[in-house]
Amino acid sequence: MVDIDLHSAHRQLGATNPLIQCITNTVVQQFSANVLLAVGAAPAMLDHEADAAQFTQIASGLLVNFGTATSHQFLAADAAIEAATAHSTPWVLDPVSIGAADFRTTRIRRAARCHPTAIRGNASEIAALAGFGLGGRGVDSTDEVEAVLPAAVHLAATTGAIVAVSGPVDAIVAQIDGVDHVVRIEGGHALMPLVIGTGCSLGAVTAAYLASPPTTPGSSADPSADLATTSASQSANPAITAAKLTAVVAAHAHFAVAGAQAAEHAQGPGSYSVAFLDALHALTADQLAQARIEIGTFESSAA
Amino acid sequence: MVDIDLHSAHRQLGATNPLIQCITNTVVQQFSANVLLAVGAAPAMLDHEADAAQFTQIASGLLVNFGTATSHQFLAADAAIEAATAHSTPWVLDPVSIGAADFRTTRIRRAARCHPTAIRGNASEIAALAGFGLGGRGVDSTDEVEAVLPAAVHLAATTGAIVAVSGPVDAIVAQIDGVDHVVRIEGGHALMPLVIGTGCSLGAVTAAYLASPPTTPGSSADPSADLATTSASQSANPAITAAKLTAVVAAHAHFAVAGAQAAEHAQGPGSYSVAFLDALHALTADQLAQARIEIGTFESSAA
Amino acid sequence: MVDIDLHSAHRQLGATNPLIQCITNTVVQQFSANVLLAVGAAPAMLDHEADAAQFTQIASGLLVNFGTATSHQFLAADAAIEAATAHSTPWVLDPVSIGAADFRTTRIRRAARCHPTAIRGNASEIAALAGFGLGGRGVDSTDEVEAVLPAAVHLAATTGAIVAVSGPVDAIVAQIDGVDHVVRIEGGHALMPLVIGTGCSLGAVTAAYLASPPTTPGSSADPSADLATTSASQSANPAITAAKLTAVVAAHAHFAVAGAQAAEHAQGPGSYSVAFLDALHALTADQLAQARIEIGTFESSAA
Repeated sequence: MVDIDLHSAHRQLGATNPLIQCITNTVVQQFSANVLLAVGAAPAMLDHEADAAQFTQIASGLLVNFGTATSHQFLAADAAIEAATAHSTPWVLDPVSIGAADFRTTRIRRAARCHPTAIRGNASEIAALAGFGLGGRGVDSTDEVEAVLPAAVHLAATTGAIVAVSGPVDAIVAQIDGVDHVVRIEGGHALMPLVIGTGCSLGAVTAAYLASPPTTPGSSADPSADLATTSASQSANPAITAAKLTAVVAAHAHFAVAGAQAAEHAQGPGSYSVAFLDALHALTADQLAQARIEIGTFESSAA
Repeated sequence: MVDIDLHSAHRQLGATNPLIQCITNTVVQQFSANVLLAVGAAPAMLDHEADAAQFTQIASGLLVNFGTATSHQFLAADAAIEAATAHSTPWVLDPVSIGAADFRTTRIRRAARCHPTAIRGNASEIAALAGFGLGGRGVDSTDEVEAVLPAAVHLAATTGAIVAVSGPVDAIVAQIDGVDHVVRIEGGHALMPLVIGTGCSLGAVTAAYLASPPTTPGSSADPSADLATTSASQSANPAITAAKLTAVVAAHAHFAVAGAQAAEHAQGPGSYSVAFLDALHALTADQLAQARIEIGTFESSAA
Repeated sequence: MVDIDLHSAHRQLGATNPLIQCITNTVVQQFSANVLLAVGAAPAMLDHEADAAQFTQIASGLLVNFGTATSHQFLAADAAIEAATAHSTPWVLDPVSIGAADFRTTRIRRAARCHPTAIRGNASEIAALAGFGLGGRGVDSTDEVEAVLPAAVHLAATTGAIVAVSGPVDAIVAQIDGVDHVVRIEGGHALMPLVIGTGCSLGAVTAAYLASPPTTPGSSADPSADLATTSASQSANPAITAAKLTAVVAAHAHFAVAGAQAAEHAQGPGSYSVAFLDALHALTADQLAQARIEIGTFESSAA
């Protein structure tokens, strides 16, 4: 069974202070930046088509989210994704708004074929990206996490990405040594979906954890190169994929634990949002390591 | 006298969870999304010229606000307004920034001629749009609500829209059966104008209430079609206009009551903003029904 | 020694309610608008290339910040800067993102040559703009304020601007009568850099104070014309530069005092952000006048 060392992941993020470039929607830019600062990363939102990719060369991680993308931002993302790939920089695709309209659906599918390190979305979005559903109405989700697991497994297999499905219980899917691993993370709170950007900023934090990987047994001297490796032959290295999986799980566990803690100080979605940023920042490695996670494998009912 | 059933309006909004497309300024996107979530609606901010209108076809309501519009966003709004009209989807125009510069004033006037279901602005903006004033300096208002009532009545008559003027006491104007009805709503707090987006997000909530209409006596089986009806002959149906008026009043009453409640937990504009989101979310139908509203008619002093 | 009357500066800002046009990055638009409202100014974020400059003609002050600039916003800023110069309107340049990529670095350097009234940035940004360093990674700063004082003095001399370097102790540099004055301001809190926009919004508040100058001895009847004067011969007027310096110091002192007060009500960056807005709004002229400032001159160690 794969080993998930959340303690080490948290320590690495704090020690690394990774610079995360977010090419993301304008609705959540402020919240995502505050979330990245709260967890110990440094945000940068440069998304000009002329220089986004040059910036990617100095970034430690990249998030791509087309929620309010302009044509300029689509072009910037194309270039940034190429630069991330060329520099082995991990990057995360958030397929928010897939299915909402043809043009953006086409663009999101195109990005998914460019070897993202991880894909994070809600159940509707993951199903739509995998070709198993119609997509959501924007940011909310009309499918259930467990119901879309086959879609997530299919998406992981076809893209080579770690696939994360957000919901009351998150599910993270990774193919390691031909086995479909599924890690479930419980936590958060019912108020969380009432704060805009809690999903989108989780994609940014996923990029931050991927950008500050722990050194794993069996990996080479440069852990960041390992993590970003995306070609089929290299991703077959189980240690590399396990390190990536740990990073994605750590990001979701960070949100799950802080999201539950925040509810203790909230009278509604406004105060919840404030308490959530406080809790993200205060979270210790020990608290993270106590996240309620369950590690298992996916057994296709069709098999 | 027109009947305003706020209790029913609140219940409908909660039951409908309408998807509201906001083509709005980037300053207030986050706050508007959080406000929509707090009152029980689902926000989506797609504003790409290539696909905004396709999304409008699945949205239940539309807000158009050109506060920081790019040329792309102007084009997106043109297409979305056409789609909303074709699908009888209610839409709200916020004329923020009218009078600030010629180009945007031209575009705002053009949108106002496209049969918005409602127009919401502060006193300066409504006066400027009606051709009775010079517009504001951006988001603040230099005219008084009562002083611009003739302008609001004129604007309602020429556009066929419900016209809402925001201020310490809001005034909502609707022409029903040839009579100019004026509903005044008292509430809110002096801190409210110190939180950016409290006006702009009210436009979004107005669209949300218009998108989830109560079934009214005398209306047809499809209440949403009723509400969105904009042609002169159809808007002459008193029941339709009364339902629209109720929706616009409910949105303003929701803000007025929650805005007053929020002040009890505020030490300044920062904490007021947080408490306001909490209060918007906690507001019950009973509390909404106790809003301080006054229903009357407009008597022109010139008559 | 130059006289810094913070009491008078605060009174003037409250009495003037200046309209501040912000051509700024989308990440911080909401926070910057709320900050401007909290200190008693009126924000407007119009940045369309077709009409931004027309709006500048009615604005009292202008902020230019290219953090997420599109080509359209670069064009809008060009026009707005010309309009500000033509109308003697004070304007502030925030060089955020300088050094991050060539295209934007070129644009920021170009703006710096257009006679900004003040330039505000962190140590890395000021060093990079002066040609003494490589710039930051986005919003964070890797150099120390004191270490970049020679760069700030050089930048003040070459641009004619007041140069403000933000950090744990801010330093404001102004050349008056051939003497390089340095005003240091202590305050704020370690949580402040964990809230996105605290730096960028300080640029906006600097523009607000510059837009509402106290009448100074020796100045002409129109104080706003004085403050905005940028040509070499006119800026040689010591009274004019002292008034400008006072405005820039007042903005930084406002943040320093409110930033320290906010920490008393904060459990983390989320609640700090809320308390900061409350404190900015509650700050009295008496409290501002008690800011910990130190007025001195710069002695080049090379001399």
